[in-house]
Amino acid sequence: MPPETDSAHDRHRTLRFHASDLQRFVVCILTAYDVPHEEAGIVADVLVSAERRGIPSHGMGRLSLYSRRLREGKIHSSTKLVTVRESSAAFCLDAGQGWGHVAGHHAMQRCIEKAKGSGICIATVRCSTHFGIAAHYAMMPLDHGMIGFAATNTRPHVAPTFGRAPTLGTNPFSLAAPALHERPFVLDMSTSTVAMGRIKLHEATQQPLPAAWGIDDKGDVCLNPGVVLERGALLPLGGFDETSGYKGYGLAFLVDILSGVLAGAGFGPLMPHEHEESGPNIGHTFAAIDIEAFRPIEDFLRDMDRLIQAVRSSPKEEGANRIYIAGEKEFEQAEQNDRLGIPLMPHILNALQRESARLGLPFDLTPID
Amino acid sequence: MPPETDSAHDRHRTLRFHASDLQRFVVCILTAYDVPHEEAGIVADVLVSAERRGIPSHGMGRLSLYSRRLREGKIHSSTKLVTVRESSAAFCLDAGQGWGHVAGHHAMQRCIEKAKGSGICIATVRCSTHFGIAAHYAMMPLDHGMIGFAATNTRPHVAPTFGRAPTLGTNPFSLAAPALHERPFVLDMSTSTVAMGRIKLHEATQQPLPAAWGIDDKGDVCLNPGVVLERGALLPLGGFDETSGYKGYGLAFLVDILSGVLAGAGFGPLMPHEHEESGPNIGHTFAAIDIEAFRPIEDFLRDMDRLIQAVRSSPKEEGANRIYIAGEKEFEQAEQNDRLGIPLMPHILNALQRESARLGLPFDLTPID
Repeated sequence: MPPETDSAHDRHRTLRFHASDLQRFVVCILTAYDVPHEEAGIVADVLVSAERRGIPSHGMGRLSLYSRRLREGKIHSSTKLVTVRESSAAFCLDAGQGWGHVAGHHAMQRCIEKAKGSGICIATVRCSTHFGIAAHYAMMPLDHGMIGFAATNTRPHVAPTFGRAPTLGTNPFSLAAPALHERPFVLDMSTSTVAMGRIKLHEATQQPLPAAWGIDDKGDVCLNPGVVLERGALLPLGGFDETSGYKGYGLAFLVDILSGVLAGAGFGPLMPHEHEESGPNIGHTFAAIDIEAFRPIEDFLRDMDRLIQAVRSSPKEEGANRIYIAGEKEFEQAEQNDRLGIPLMPHILNALQRESARLGLPFDLTPID
Repeated sequence: MPPETDSAHDRHRTLRFHASDLQRFVVCILTAYDVPHEEAGIVADVLVSAERRGIPSHGMGRLSLYSRRLREGKIHSSTKLVTVRESSAAFCLDAGQGWGHVAGHHAMQRCIEKAKGSGICIATVRCSTHFGIAAHYAMMPLDHGMIGFAATNTRPHVAPTFGRAPTLGTNPFSLAAPALHERPFVLDMSTSTVAMGRIKLHEATQQPLPAAWGIDDKGDVCLNPGVVLERGALLPLGGFDETSGYKGYGLAFLVDILSGVLAGAGFGPLMPHEHEESGPNIGHTFAAIDIEAFRPIEDFLRDMDRLIQAVRSSPKEEGANRIYIAGEKEFEQAEQNDRLGIPLMPHILNALQRESARLGLPFDLTPID
């Protein structure tokens, strides 16, 4: 039953969809904005990959934002990647304010190819835009017997230790490493205590924040998500100085050195604002490490299983059922979503319907019964 | 006035020494244990570098520990480095249970040479021992227009999120990047909220721990440093799950993948215990990134200054005087110590005196007046 014929009841419940249908929908919308078919497919891959893995903050809901930026000319519909510099194990790309997803996909593919010969390859990208979830790129090398790394800077949201203003980005990064029988290790983390999405979710559901998530405009701890969003800032991982927040602040700075300064992109509080004439200048970093350059891949995979199993079976705190490995929750969520379909909340579905209507396209996204 | 003629007063006060005298003292002790002169010099460099930078937990106090391990055969007096695998931008060394410092020094030197051609080089080291402060190695590439990275795993001290036992190492890493007029950015951090030294210092001074530093053997927060050391564990950076401790846990795991599993060294809870027959099997990771492979070095250095100055001059929280850049406190400490001499606490000085006596060497360490 398509949503346009929904009952009042259906309009308020979460419906589930096939990943392939969501994929096709994104491509349909983006190609209507003159995004080349291959590029639209890559953006769709990244958005659906976030939905599958249970990270809806980086999923289908981004499509309206991307559409608006396309209409405003803040994302160029097609991505002209220019290689600025290149050596045997490193290169720098300019994405010309095209798609961060497309730049990320091609940068990581080239990293994988080059790392086969040299053991490692690292790439930076400048003049780019939002690239979605970092884990999508970090996981690309897994099937090639490689470890993957991806990082991006963002607009400033995080206060440095002893500061009180949004100064550094949430600057997430991801590292993925394959295992034998176990699922891969996939760490994907912002360098703030939580990313913006978690604060917004607390605001939407009118829940107070845990301490160490955010501060107000004086730099004091603040449990009110609205105040943090409006005039406060996020705290770096670790919180205040006493609990080593300077380490999370240092990590955010580190990502800005690699993805901003080394890439020749924007960085820190000097990142161009959304309304600035110069346009976006987000920067990314990608790396692929060939495991065989260090030891036989089968030994590495076996030891990954041993490490994962030893940590998972270590003694649990009272009341805890389980110790998770980074990425494990997301793999389980993806398996469930592949079985049942990907859930979309009603406000996301409505936004997608509006996008179709704006472009005069039929809204043919059909939920799973 | 040499310490052996100290008054009762002098025995209880901190005396200051020239870095070059401490350096010579370490070489003298280690060569008496048949450590080759060049290797003793490298170990001395790293220990004195920690003292200069105000990190005495990794300084002269380690000499007694190293001496004991030399006597027990747990560090081989000379380091036979074997290249296990090598490609154009990656290699793996076996340190044969020699000096971690010597392995680190040579690994990073080779990384710098190889990165000149390829843009980046990464090295792992297996069968190694304690290598001192990670920042020492991460800073080696700075004078070559490069970014440096160093990481090591350690014996397990940290509980994973929802765990309660020491399972992963404090697994520190360091990243250093040069600037133009500003001092370099030097992040050097354990992936736990604090390293073991901070807990031991609180135990020695009988001060309760801040929350989020450690847990007891049930996994509950524990403010008693003795209990944390005896039967508890350190918390990862971020503390418990609600404040994103799973990110610090993920970082510790990440370092163990690179320095343990990828290197073919020990890892996690499977790291050999000190008393085990097999001997130590600590692993390290080093990398050097050539900035010119991405953009002109002068542009990078200028933008590093801009980023540092923008963050430093951002609004401060009420009551705060200053926003620090990673490494800034250590540079200022080093400048002060170069001016006034390096302070050694009485119990460290006594330990050094005992080392000399044990070897029948004259104790000729003379404090600065």
